[in-house]
Amino acid sequence: MSVLPQSDSPLSGVRVLDLTQIYQGPYAAFLMAMAGAEVIKVEPIGGERMRGPGGSATPMAFAMLNTNKKSITLDLKSSRGKELLLELVDEADVLLENFAVGTMDRLGIGWEQLKQRNPALIYATGTGYGLKGPDSDLLAMDHTIQAASGILSVTGDEGQPPMRAGGAPCDIMSGAHMYAGVLTALFARGNNPSTQGKGTRVEVSMLDSMYFTLSSELSAYHSGGKIPERNSRRTGGSACPYGRYECMDGWIALICVSDAQWARITQALDKPDWAGADRFKNAISRRKNEAEIEQALKEWAEPLSQADAFAKMRALKVPVAPVRNIEEVRTNPHMHASGMLSWINNRDLGEVVLANSPIQYESCERTPLTTFPRPGEHNAEVLQDWLGMDASDVEALVEEKVI
Amino acid sequence: MSVLPQSDSPLSGVRVLDLTQIYQGPYAAFLMAMAGAEVIKVEPIGGERMRGPGGSATPMAFAMLNTNKKSITLDLKSSRGKELLLELVDEADVLLENFAVGTMDRLGIGWEQLKQRNPALIYATGTGYGLKGPDSDLLAMDHTIQAASGILSVTGDEGQPPMRAGGAPCDIMSGAHMYAGVLTALFARGNNPSTQGKGTRVEVSMLDSMYFTLSSELSAYHSGGKIPERNSRRTGGSACPYGRYECMDGWIALICVSDAQWARITQALDKPDWAGADRFKNAISRRKNEAEIEQALKEWAEPLSQADAFAKMRALKVPVAPVRNIEEVRTNPHMHASGMLSWINNRDLGEVVLANSPIQYESCERTPLTTFPRPGEHNAEVLQDWLGMDASDVEALVEEKVI
Repeated sequence: MSVLPQSDSPLSGVRVLDLTQIYQGPYAAFLMAMAGAEVIKVEPIGGERMRGPGGSATPMAFAMLNTNKKSITLDLKSSRGKELLLELVDEADVLLENFAVGTMDRLGIGWEQLKQRNPALIYATGTGYGLKGPDSDLLAMDHTIQAASGILSVTGDEGQPPMRAGGAPCDIMSGAHMYAGVLTALFARGNNPSTQGKGTRVEVSMLDSMYFTLSSELSAYHSGGKIPERNSRRTGGSACPYGRYECMDGWIALICVSDAQWARITQALDKPDWAGADRFKNAISRRKNEAEIEQALKEWAEPLSQADAFAKMRALKVPVAPVRNIEEVRTNPHMHASGMLSWINNRDLGEVVLANSPIQYESCERTPLTTFPRPGEHNAEVLQDWLGMDASDVEALVEEKVI
Repeated sequence: MSVLPQSDSPLSGVRVLDLTQIYQGPYAAFLMAMAGAEVIKVEPIGGERMRGPGGSATPMAFAMLNTNKKSITLDLKSSRGKELLLELVDEADVLLENFAVGTMDRLGIGWEQLKQRNPALIYATGTGYGLKGPDSDLLAMDHTIQAASGILSVTGDEGQPPMRAGGAPCDIMSGAHMYAGVLTALFARGNNPSTQGKGTRVEVSMLDSMYFTLSSELSAYHSGGKIPERNSRRTGGSACPYGRYECMDGWIALICVSDAQWARITQALDKPDWAGADRFKNAISRRKNEAEIEQALKEWAEPLSQADAFAKMRALKVPVAPVRNIEEVRTNPHMHASGMLSWINNRDLGEVVLANSPIQYESCERTPLTTFPRPGEHNAEVLQDWLGMDASDVEALVEEKVI
């Protein structure tokens, strides 16, 4: 680490070059920034494509994923731009990229080049399918990885077309693993005697990151020998009841994973005799008589408000939650109370909700959210601070269209 | 670290007590084991409930998530059991738990107690909703967090009931963040001058971990002002075409994110005039005329085999993938070639596919997969190695039903 201010943020003093784009890599770099690292977003002149038209039209996703970073612009196709990157790499602890496999090598700034330059560098590459194996050259987006990883095959209804799981789970899942891999490598560089002071390349693919998500389906397949059908109603396990129930003004989701919970659910349903009934005595028997239970829950929920139904089951210590839409999530009082979400007055977007890191440490407060940088906003600051350039050096680089 | 063998595994010498259960915490501990840490799974006598009947009936998920760990049993409700845990904590770098909030405190072995005992300990707690905030006491399972986090609200079809995203994304996503948080804390303990030698509590919730997954939906909502409807066909963005197409024997998923890709898709469709056509000239115009494109892709795919359709689009450098079922994922040649998946002869399950860590380091080979332990299999080994007990000490603990 080049700078070690006395700060209790875990990654205080760690210097990161973030060459990533879209969701996967930016999420990894965002997590580093929120843990206190100095993250420099390195963008093409004009900025990352995800910025869209910029200013007040900047996509919320860009704002969320790039807050608390600094931005420099750099033409990595020019020889002076490459040279500048190498000079920055000399000062960096970590470089992150998620270009298509081989792009950095073709630019002459791949891992083989960079590790010669700075053997202590942690170089993290986020890919769709990994660097090795017959599919490593395939282009990947969240949607196609949902297909390749099996997620689509189990989302939707039996006999119906495969459906997309909402959101971009493959991007974010692999971004979280990418961050984890960087930290593991940083730890090994600093603490493992046999790798002390040595950098490495960290590799994470979207495809690999999703495998464990299918743990339940892989279990059902192994034990039953039957390939799981699409079933967005419930998993193949025995938990019962397990479903979503429509109230007057919305839905609740509920799952029962113990006989004690079942006994409490029968209180809500006002069917005390069901608690001891033989046909409902355990998960397997409840599963066999699921239709009767589902009907009772449906009828129970119908005349209730969502808030009421949720409160009743919650009071009975049953795993239950309201099905929240995007607005309800964004303004969720619990997430605002815990500090995960905050209303921020952003200079470009106005009053918006931005999210903090999902990881908290008792030893330090949550890092306050700042804002996403404009393209090249920190050119002068970073080139001065990292490389000792002065204003005229920076101006010359602007004129040469290198930054 | 108590033991530092010369090994290039990043976490070689790191000692971990894994008190976790089900998917979330065990995934975090699995990632530690695969990065070279010594992970001791601490189970109730008889074993974690997720083992089910055990032996050849052990669920695949348990096998996947607990490979490469050692197991000890410990009755944490007995005073001798608690005492033993404290002695183990003296020797540990990390302790992980994902009990309901407050459980460890009630047992008298919560963070407040443990940090007195070992101020260098990293204590990681995985929760549903976090330790603070009005919903922190809510019981959580993947299904209810899909509801509370907004995933259900955008999975399924407009006007239809909310649907479950296949798999257990909330469990695995938060497990990955939990691992990342532990590594961040370990790094800070070893490398940050202001926290050198100090442990901390790391906290990750399932709810918080899912927020960024909805980046696209939050963007669409922010720019359009309209709460996104359920739409498992595509996101609200402008990428077009974007869909799944049925071939003779299966489906492919495809997404087009540039005009250059669109031009190549028109080659596959044998509609060269579409590349330059005004109504398809960019994503926004293609989106307006989506029905025509969808119809053409549907007709194109119908007479082809899935393998053919995939190969044709792949050759044209379009992001495309076959929609794989669980069996096709598990036996995927690419994932086996890359070393992510392996056939393992397991003493309890026979020939099975197990997965490695999605995180790879150039500086060391993938850790070979061993097997999941039987409950208490390493009682004698761990109590001897960590606490210096001899065989008769261990035997006495068995007789007292402490282990």
